[in-house]
Amino acid sequence: MSEQPADPVLVVGTVAYDTVKTPFDEADHALGGSATYFASAASLFTDVHVVSIVGGDFDLDELDYLRKRGTDLSGIQVEPDEETFHWSGEYDYDMNTRTTHATDLNVLTNFAPLVPINAETAPLCFLANIDPNLQLDVLDQLRNQRLVAADTMNFWIENTPQSLDEVLARVDTLIINDEEAREIGDTPDLIESMRRVQGLGPEIVVCKKGEHGALLANRSNWFAAPAFLHADLHDPTGAGDAFAGGFMGTLAAVDEITDTTLRRAVVYGTAAASIAIEDFGPRALAKATLDEVEDRARELAKFSRFPPIK
Amino acid sequence: MSEQPADPVLVVGTVAYDTVKTPFDEADHALGGSATYFASAASLFTDVHVVSIVGGDFDLDELDYLRKRGTDLSGIQVEPDEETFHWSGEYDYDMNTRTTHATDLNVLTNFAPLVPINAETAPLCFLANIDPNLQLDVLDQLRNQRLVAADTMNFWIENTPQSLDEVLARVDTLIINDEEAREIGDTPDLIESMRRVQGLGPEIVVCKKGEHGALLANRSNWFAAPAFLHADLHDPTGAGDAFAGGFMGTLAAVDEITDTTLRRAVVYGTAAASIAIEDFGPRALAKATLDEVEDRARELAKFSRFPPIK
Repeated sequence: MSEQPADPVLVVGTVAYDTVKTPFDEADHALGGSATYFASAASLFTDVHVVSIVGGDFDLDELDYLRKRGTDLSGIQVEPDEETFHWSGEYDYDMNTRTTHATDLNVLTNFAPLVPINAETAPLCFLANIDPNLQLDVLDQLRNQRLVAADTMNFWIENTPQSLDEVLARVDTLIINDEEAREIGDTPDLIESMRRVQGLGPEIVVCKKGEHGALLANRSNWFAAPAFLHADLHDPTGAGDAFAGGFMGTLAAVDEITDTTLRRAVVYGTAAASIAIEDFGPRALAKATLDEVEDRARELAKFSRFPPIK
Repeated sequence: MSEQPADPVLVVGTVAYDTVKTPFDEADHALGGSATYFASAASLFTDVHVVSIVGGDFDLDELDYLRKRGTDLSGIQVEPDEETFHWSGEYDYDMNTRTTHATDLNVLTNFAPLVPINAETAPLCFLANIDPNLQLDVLDQLRNQRLVAADTMNFWIENTPQSLDEVLARVDTLIINDEEAREIGDTPDLIESMRRVQGLGPEIVVCKKGEHGALLANRSNWFAAPAFLHADLHDPTGAGDAFAGGFMGTLAAVDEITDTTLRRAVVYGTAAASIAIEDFGPRALAKATLDEVEDRARELAKFSRFPPIK
């Protein structure tokens, strides 16, 4: 990391209440949401601006741990007469298969993201998984970013492909999982699908593969990072957004986006995600320190240590 | 690699005719079998002794490319009145899902592996995927090996668990895929399943994960290698045995089995497998050179090049 202060990062996404059941435990209406997970990881690295929306039932004190880390929550709109976005789901015993019981959009139905003036020029911005039309509205409000990254999901790939194409044409980086890459790229060949995503706009494509690690395509350079092999998996919810938080947080602290700093961002993102999954919601990230993330990054380097090749 | 001559490697497995259909092409009664794939890769590194069985329909000239590389085929029994083992199957458009149409054991039904005297003391031995009771018969014929590795499959895990346990107690290394690891370890947690396999005997466990690379557990050291990202996939049949051939061939050429040489063996195994899948059967390996394997090993090192971590 460089010694100068890191740039602030803007995230636009959801702050939610999640009801999650795993083979080990369950949590009812616990803190969740893409912006929450992202900020929980990114705030270990730098200041974060959060743009989101919650209902009158939401207890903003639950985000105090973010505020204490310098996170600006002024971009979270509160709609007193509505309810917070609520997701309810259950993980199979293998923790890979997830069944959604309910997606109560509630306050999200009328979400019109408004980026506060002090956040418009945040040098890095992450558009978490929301309607691509809202992502486009946010892009119209941004000025002078040096890196804009986006996430998406199968629902938007299938239902709003034109808007998603517009987003892809306007962002530098797409951070998605392997299923989404194959769906956007329309091929089962993951590498080819990532190349095709690059052809749609984003020069940098990061593909998250859960227990199989992550792949980075940066122009014609490729990087394969393993997952943190010894994570104590309790709740995989939010791992992808925690990854994005660690990824963007790392890049916020460097002067230049290069192949080396991007690789480091993937490693720190992986480390952040591995912490996120060790407790329900963002609890583990709320307690974590940057030192712990760095310890895991060093462990990841050991898992990947290559032998000398002739 | 060291400069001294590499040790010979013994493989016991199948020599088969495969009928394979892929979305791109098909091959009828083409050369296949675990020992064939293994030898096709390992013979790039060192001399190989093959123990197997074929029927009167088998054309031994098809193995001339192996003989020219110094492979000893005298351990292949020929049963003139029977037919060669035949497998027939088809790959889905995603090349991951495989449907078996026929498994004609034929000559394999009465296979009683007999290790030729000149091969009994081969310092390295690979027991490819056959009935664990036959693997035990081979183990009884071996003398003074410095490394014995085995493979297996779901059929034996489910139907001959006691014999498989005996094999596991007697080999140094198990080379399996992720499904098999989870099944033997009886847990969806892949890392934990590999630890449990170690608990059953083999100190070294290698788990092949196809497009997601391979994991190596060596006592308490772990190594995660990516797959070769730019392979031109034509027929995945035999990739695992080609991996084992590259793995054992690499170790045949080094004085000591260490964490570093094991990592190198995984990398060269991955490189060999990536060549194997680029044509039907062992055709691509039959044409390949050690230089090409080393080129791919260097590429793999680039995919995995870690950034400096604080």
